[in-house]
Amino acid sequence: MIGVLGAGQLGRMLALAGIPMGESFTFLHPQESACVRGLGEVIVAPYDDRARLEELARRAEVVTYEFESVPVDPVRWLASRVPVYPPPRALEVGQDRFAEKTFFEELGIPTARFAKVDDQRSLEDAVHRLGFPAFLKTRRGGYDGKGQARFANAADVAGAFAKLGGVPAILESHVTFERELSILAVRAKDGEVRTYPLVENHHRAGILRVSHAPAPDITAALEQKARTYAERVTAKLDYVGVLAIELFQAGDELLANEMAPRVHNSGHYSIEGAHTSQFENHLRAIRGLPLGDTRSVGPSAMVNILGGIPKSSEILGVPGAHLHLYGKDPKPGRKVGHVTLRATTPSELAERLALLERIVSHV
Amino acid sequence: MIGVLGAGQLGRMLALAGIPMGESFTFLHPQESACVRGLGEVIVAPYDDRARLEELARRAEVVTYEFESVPVDPVRWLASRVPVYPPPRALEVGQDRFAEKTFFEELGIPTARFAKVDDQRSLEDAVHRLGFPAFLKTRRGGYDGKGQARFANAADVAGAFAKLGGVPAILESHVTFERELSILAVRAKDGEVRTYPLVENHHRAGILRVSHAPAPDITAALEQKARTYAERVTAKLDYVGVLAIELFQAGDELLANEMAPRVHNSGHYSIEGAHTSQFENHLRAIRGLPLGDTRSVGPSAMVNILGGIPKSSEILGVPGAHLHLYGKDPKPGRKVGHVTLRATTPSELAERLALLERIVSHV
Repeated sequence: MIGVLGAGQLGRMLALAGIPMGESFTFLHPQESACVRGLGEVIVAPYDDRARLEELARRAEVVTYEFESVPVDPVRWLASRVPVYPPPRALEVGQDRFAEKTFFEELGIPTARFAKVDDQRSLEDAVHRLGFPAFLKTRRGGYDGKGQARFANAADVAGAFAKLGGVPAILESHVTFERELSILAVRAKDGEVRTYPLVENHHRAGILRVSHAPAPDITAALEQKARTYAERVTAKLDYVGVLAIELFQAGDELLANEMAPRVHNSGHYSIEGAHTSQFENHLRAIRGLPLGDTRSVGPSAMVNILGGIPKSSEILGVPGAHLHLYGKDPKPGRKVGHVTLRATTPSELAERLALLERIVSHV
Repeated sequence: MIGVLGAGQLGRMLALAGIPMGESFTFLHPQESACVRGLGEVIVAPYDDRARLEELARRAEVVTYEFESVPVDPVRWLASRVPVYPPPRALEVGQDRFAEKTFFEELGIPTARFAKVDDQRSLEDAVHRLGFPAFLKTRRGGYDGKGQARFANAADVAGAFAKLGGVPAILESHVTFERELSILAVRAKDGEVRTYPLVENHHRAGILRVSHAPAPDITAALEQKARTYAERVTAKLDYVGVLAIELFQAGDELLANEMAPRVHNSGHYSIEGAHTSQFENHLRAIRGLPLGDTRSVGPSAMVNILGGIPKSSEILGVPGAHLHLYGKDPKPGRKVGHVTLRATTPSELAERLALLERIVSHV
């Protein structure tokens, strides 16, 4: 049995990939979750409930997590009792924007310029060094664009540390980039690393809307650069499982923005768009099984369904569309599903995507 | 909610395809079944339990079946209360070898020569007309090579009717053929038919072992012939869902052997080997949703796992392999899973298949 911390859509898709392989799952999650209903047992408990963690450790052969904000201490405690993959260190690094950027820097992976911010004074020093525009972000928490402030000039900086909650933060210089890419890597227990082709991501209001896989117009040198970065990160962490790195492309340069020590939204296309899905490969890795082929089947796009759910008949009326709903109640801005779109050529994909986006954005 | 009569591996794979589409399932099955555990509710009841069928009719929006030996009367009764797809008439035709061959004959679809056998006397008349070798088969029941007798000469015929159980039977003349193929078709409520490429099937001891998809060396004319037959069959039955027809190839000729009004073992490759799996397309059809792309992703093979389960690490060590276990306890001769094997070229597939068959046959 595989234990999973978290029970959202990533847990759901892990279970759907694992059941055919003969796996069973137990999720530990603070609330009941509709996403994994029927797909495994659910232990409803806070992530730091030692008694329930102990129960999970006793019953699971291996534990993984699908939510990168799980507190690190209980995960370390768990890892002393049962194998936990990815390693807790990856979780720790990924949870702290300053630690993460420092980690990239130590591995020779370029990032935006950054500085540690612990109070208004250090914020002002940092602004002085990095200049405008710049972004203040909390070191911990915040995702999908939350927990951030943008500074265009000195007036924006006044009182900004308190406004962001007076919590440890990081200032990042503005980066001019053409597009956001991500690379998904899977590393096996024996150290083998396989990477999926670079994916191009489009956000709106800080939330991922569409990914193109493979990203168009990627040179072999750029692909190799991303692959090298993923290899450095996963090797350093003695990583096992799937890891995603978000990258900004500026010409031939790739700047690491952040990493996620788990299966990733920009890899959802892989269920139909790659020879082996990220979910299957994550499970293969943490189970010590041989990794699967990470190549693309052909041009694909992933479109998130946010807020409301369009009619299945409309979505599936777009040729090449496959529907993935997460079992969640619709709520404004909530990720309730995604569509994988497949096509034979990039231009066919573009046509189909135009049709699909009209349907999905109309909800 | 989708009601399913039967709860074996086909039900399991239907549910795994449907859950991402937001579907939920209730299975009606005479015994508890490990195959569908967690994937839906199970009503444990005989197929003719009217009270439980009534309950299923009340709760389900549509009912399908995954087992072609479900008795027809209860299905007809159910169909008067809730939409049932495929139509009960398909079940009825498929359950009776004589009705099935007659049905093919009426549609101008070639078959082996055949004759109705109701007693020893009509058996002897039939043998006289059809000659040797010939096969006596029960009209109903029997699958995977059971319920059949082969006659090489007159001595074999003596007492054969009683030996086969004294039940209504059919005599079929021997057909010289090069290989067995199957065609999977999916028909939508609006009459649209899509077919999967012809698959080549290899049996051992009457049980399907390996399917090659697409079947190699198929001419466009042969593919078109199979497609035409599938269109005739599905149109005549006003069919909705996936249907399989097993065909014998003799040169440019295709002889229909039998049909299965359901998703089919020879279509299991489609989970990874086609753009839309047979399971997803069956659900799309019975739900009145647009059909998905039935084309192959590339050369694939499906290898059944019979009896015992090899180590996952060995199976997945074969490049391009994907594992599908059914949650069943191993038992000699029992289908407990299958492997889909993917490759880029036919020769690569052949190499991989040789590796895989060594592992699977060693169990």
